[in-house]
Amino acid sequence: MPLGQRSFDNSEARYCGAEVEFSEDIENALTYNLESSFDFIVAPLTNQDFRPSKLKVSPLGSAVPPFAGSDLVLSPAQWSGHVVGKVSSWLDLDSAEDLVRVDSETTLKLELGWAAHLSLQACLLPTPRPLNCGNYARCVNQALQGLAHMQLWLRIPLQSPQMQEAEDTPEEETVFLMRDSITGWPVSDSWEWWNMFRMLCEHHSHLSVALDITASLPPASSIMRWIGEPVRAAILHTSAFLTNKRGYPCLSKRHQNLITMLFNHSVQIVLSGEPLHHLDESDLSPNTESNGNCSEDAANARHPLKPYLEYIAYLYRRMEPPTEQERFEMSYRDFLQAPLQPLMDNLEAQTYETFEKDSTKYSQYQKAVHAALLDRVSESEASTTIIVLMVVGAGRGPLVRASLKAAEEARRQLRVYAVEKNPNAVVTLHSLIKMEGWEEMVNIVSCDMRQWNAPEQADILVSELLGSFGDNELSPECLDGAQRFLKEDGISIPSSYTSFIGPITASKLHNDVKSYNDLAHFETAYVVKLHNVAKLAAPKPVFTFHHPNFIPGSDNRRYKKLVFELPEDTGSALVHGFAGYFDAVLYNDVHLGIEPSTSTPNMFSWFSIFFPLRNPIYVPVGCKLELHFWRCVGPTKVWYEWAVTAPSVSAVHNTNGRSYWVGL
Amino acid sequence: MPLGQRSFDNSEARYCGAEVEFSEDIENALTYNLESSFDFIVAPLTNQDFRPSKLKVSPLGSAVPPFAGSDLVLSPAQWSGHVVGKVSSWLDLDSAEDLVRVDSETTLKLELGWAAHLSLQACLLPTPRPLNCGNYARCVNQALQGLAHMQLWLRIPLQSPQMQEAEDTPEEETVFLMRDSITGWPVSDSWEWWNMFRMLCEHHSHLSVALDITASLPPASSIMRWIGEPVRAAILHTSAFLTNKRGYPCLSKRHQNLITMLFNHSVQIVLSGEPLHHLDESDLSPNTESNGNCSEDAANARHPLKPYLEYIAYLYRRMEPPTEQERFEMSYRDFLQAPLQPLMDNLEAQTYETFEKDSTKYSQYQKAVHAALLDRVSESEASTTIIVLMVVGAGRGPLVRASLKAAEEARRQLRVYAVEKNPNAVVTLHSLIKMEGWEEMVNIVSCDMRQWNAPEQADILVSELLGSFGDNELSPECLDGAQRFLKEDGISIPSSYTSFIGPITASKLHNDVKSYNDLAHFETAYVVKLHNVAKLAAPKPVFTFHHPNFIPGSDNRRYKKLVFELPEDTGSALVHGFAGYFDAVLYNDVHLGIEPSTSTPNMFSWFSIFFPLRNPIYVPVGCKLELHFWRCVGPTKVWYEWAVTAPSVSAVHNTNGRSYWVGL
Repeated sequence: MPLGQRSFDNSEARYCGAEVEFSEDIENALTYNLESSFDFIVAPLTNQDFRPSKLKVSPLGSAVPPFAGSDLVLSPAQWSGHVVGKVSSWLDLDSAEDLVRVDSETTLKLELGWAAHLSLQACLLPTPRPLNCGNYARCVNQALQGLAHMQLWLRIPLQSPQMQEAEDTPEEETVFLMRDSITGWPVSDSWEWWNMFRMLCEHHSHLSVALDITASLPPASSIMRWIGEPVRAAILHTSAFLTNKRGYPCLSKRHQNLITMLFNHSVQIVLSGEPLHHLDESDLSPNTESNGNCSEDAANARHPLKPYLEYIAYLYRRMEPPTEQERFEMSYRDFLQAPLQPLMDNLEAQTYETFEKDSTKYSQYQKAVHAALLDRVSESEASTTIIVLMVVGAGRGPLVRASLKAAEEARRQLRVYAVEKNPNAVVTLHSLIKMEGWEEMVNIVSCDMRQWNAPEQADILVSELLGSFGDNELSPECLDGAQRFLKEDGISIPSSYTSFIGPITASKLHNDVKSYNDLAHFETAYVVKLHNVAKLAAPKPVFTFHHPNFIPGSDNRRYKKLVFELPEDTGSALVHGFAGYFDAVLYNDVHLGIEPSTSTPNMFSWFSIFFPLRNPIYVPVGCKLELHFWRCVGPTKVWYEWAVTAPSVSAVHNTNGRSYWVGL
Repeated sequence: MPLGQRSFDNSEARYCGAEVEFSEDIENALTYNLESSFDFIVAPLTNQDFRPSKLKVSPLGSAVPPFAGSDLVLSPAQWSGHVVGKVSSWLDLDSAEDLVRVDSETTLKLELGWAAHLSLQACLLPTPRPLNCGNYARCVNQALQGLAHMQLWLRIPLQSPQMQEAEDTPEEETVFLMRDSITGWPVSDSWEWWNMFRMLCEHHSHLSVALDITASLPPASSIMRWIGEPVRAAILHTSAFLTNKRGYPCLSKRHQNLITMLFNHSVQIVLSGEPLHHLDESDLSPNTESNGNCSEDAANARHPLKPYLEYIAYLYRRMEPPTEQERFEMSYRDFLQAPLQPLMDNLEAQTYETFEKDSTKYSQYQKAVHAALLDRVSESEASTTIIVLMVVGAGRGPLVRASLKAAEEARRQLRVYAVEKNPNAVVTLHSLIKMEGWEEMVNIVSCDMRQWNAPEQADILVSELLGSFGDNELSPECLDGAQRFLKEDGISIPSSYTSFIGPITASKLHNDVKSYNDLAHFETAYVVKLHNVAKLAAPKPVFTFHHPNFIPGSDNRRYKKLVFELPEDTGSALVHGFAGYFDAVLYNDVHLGIEPSTSTPNMFSWFSIFFPLRNPIYVPVGCKLELHFWRCVGPTKVWYEWAVTAPSVSAVHNTNGRSYWVGL
């Protein structure tokens, strides 16, 4: 039974599981747990005493491995819907003892084969040895090649046992910095164990993480790394719980925040361990849903983890409902979109429709025009001066509307030119003007702003040609073309814009790009609502453009070198690429943007942009990340190139715009 | 004029060039140098005062860049055969000053465009800034995409100026260990500059190195790295020369060895610099070839670098001629071959022909059989005992011949069974037996040894089923099948074999594999005569197989983890893959193998084997390299998997033998 009813939440996070012991009678074990409101169990598939090398082969040459019943004891739907297989935890594929290693290899193969036969959705793999998992990863990688649907969850402690032990002792720092003698990596950082394993398995999309959560938690920025990793489950141990005044289990504030964060990122909770809160029957009754009616038997059989489940369900249900913007964006989360090419292509009506709904954006424009009008014409001249305002890229008219509103509010007089190159949008524009009775004030020009011969010079040029990365929809080139008809002291709204970029862990996006199986997709930027993504360092400014720009000989090519430092307590991280944003100064202090630290609230016209790396780059703890970014301009196109030179050197991406470019 | 006539040497190393100043009259400059026996000149293509930003554009909008004449001043053959373009050395594409950077970008594009227009074979690029070459590499990478034939030689000092200055001072160690503040790499190691540059350019096959050689040389193992890199030219400065007793330029022993090594690896010498040895005209006459006849003019115009050229020609001519084995192997150098599959495929007559010529190999076998026969039957029993010897995989009979020779020599009596699965080879075998009159002693069995029902048990099993990596042609599986008919105390020749492996720099091999443009070729092992390859660490043993092997339950799967340490003074290096070898114990102290430190001399049946890495791995100075190697056995095939886990983690290569396997 799901943890609660949140109509908008279709993610796996609704379901909660229980880790159970091996049982010959898995049918009963499942029923018992489902009846106690768990949604699934994580159960061993074979008797834990089984060792292939000790297997007695019958005289007839057949030997039945000690599986938990036959595939017939549960229905296919029960197996696949309610059982996660747990690979034997005695397995040690990197043991120095050949016998243990070979026994482990054989058993792993046997158990995964059995789990696949049962069509289980997932199997839980035991924790690898710290930074010593070469053979384990190799065997799992072999198995991954043959899996159609089944996910493999690699069990990783959120806090390594070494760190748990050292916590709050003088050794803490020492343990944190302890290096593996061969790789040189921090051996007590469990993320490193995962990273080595998945690198060996080549980021396979069926390999994911199940995080073990106990009482001790690593620093926040260390936890944050996991958001960008494929975490499917969190195994929450009873030892992680505190006891409240009434004797019930509850979680610390930090644990609560962690669980909420996990819910928000579609991570399922699995409860595990012995019950540590022994409550009286009488204490329990107010919480049981079927009190009174339940038989003695059922009461005796009350699930020992039930109080923990109830607390988790309580956390789930009390989460804040998503805002309107979040609801709108939910279906776009981590979904790669090709950026628009509004200069080469004409937008569709649906696209205009969506963007025009973004009232925040237009109200910012209105504020900017308002301020510009007041600065441009003094109160005393207001009645005698007509200000020429040109909207370049008028679309279906929202900026015309915003400008007229601003003029009305400011009591200034306007003559508006609405320049639009898309003839289809011009149709709508005409009918809008007519409908609103703006014929006297607004002239419609159906023309590319770069070619238009304006009948007069403008005081104010209003445009909204910004992409997620600021200049990536060629606003600079368009406005350079349009400023011919701006007065020398004229105003451009926006007056400047800056792109921003920062490194991210984004395994889901990486795998989506990889699935295209070509180079071009790894050298393309994508518009994407970033969600299961870890932002590893604060974004930094990249390129800035000012308008108007009458400086002779200036051009729109740019080059920027950026150095990022990850917070020390993050630990190491894997960079799959870079998230890009913009901030635009519309006029003076009126700005508009999506750079996280200054982003305009309640605005949904822009998602971030994602620049992938062909090979994800491992950034060891304490190392700097050096990124180069170029904006290149050719006769017919504009493109970006990017490369990393520290801590390791990547190839230059998108050389000559071979994979991704924006047409002029 | 080539340095000398060595009929077998068709490499570029025969040609020697001179680096010259910019000249408006390139025609004369070339003639002068060719007449002085140089083969080509390295000449700037534009006036070195040229700066695009200072270029005055004529009122008609045209501006002629100050090129060295038009393309008509030399014939196309002269341009392409005798001129290497030298890109202006003032270029600084990573200058912090935008003007310098943009001027440099423009000039680089202009000069490379001009050079390509002239169909030059190569252009020399100025030395990049130490570990700060992002923009330079990006621009070169852009140019590389458009080059059809022209090579770009990046100029790199063999010893960095920093190290030259610190040499033999107390600071030497400090400078050597000086780290770049961002990348953390040893900034005074010029190899690092090259490595960053070529990584950014994605190992482009048209990008190579021209090494500047001066008086100061780095340690031998540091120089050795360059053998695996695409070094096309060495620019030898006059300052590198010493003066001999007669006042002539000569080189130190270390320099001489370096030049000889470069000759042997097809590297061209370019002489450069002011003449530092001012010889009297009288001193010169004994060395000039045209003395007496030459006019005053020619004598006056004697090339200032001529004495240096003569010394280089002397070094070239006095090189040892190659041995017979070297001549045989020359055409196979660095040429990737697919390993044989003698079990699945039948070898061709030509292949038998080649291998049978390897007399060293068969004399080793003869020694081994001889020793085994003496041990097996005492002198007293020699006349009464017949030893059963089976040659499994007899081919066209060379091991039968070696065995019979050994028996004759040892005065022991043999009954030989020659088992061969290739029916075509059996034809030849029959005629050999007949021709030699061995019918009484030799029984021919046309059968796969794994299926044959032998009429009696053998005392000695002789086989030669070894591949370059020992077990890679499935000797273990074949001999396990054949030992059914070996007596319990019988002898297998070979009695054991071990594979060896070591990391190498091999940029040529990497590019050849890459040119297939697929994953499979990066997960395949190749037989190859390694030549332009740097062996970075001594090879280590991998897998050993013993025969006969009557231990029940043993199998031929193997797993080995190896840790390599590069000599400290090598510096950092790039590992493109691993070179594999084998050593076999035929019998007691008679061995046979190609592992470099113990290889059997004058044997040419086996080249090394090369296991590539999909992404070359950078090994920073002082770091360890950890390699995992697996031998996997399935029902129908045997394959290897390999992975690196330090200093960085690779994917597991050839999972499930998906790309490369040997059929059973």
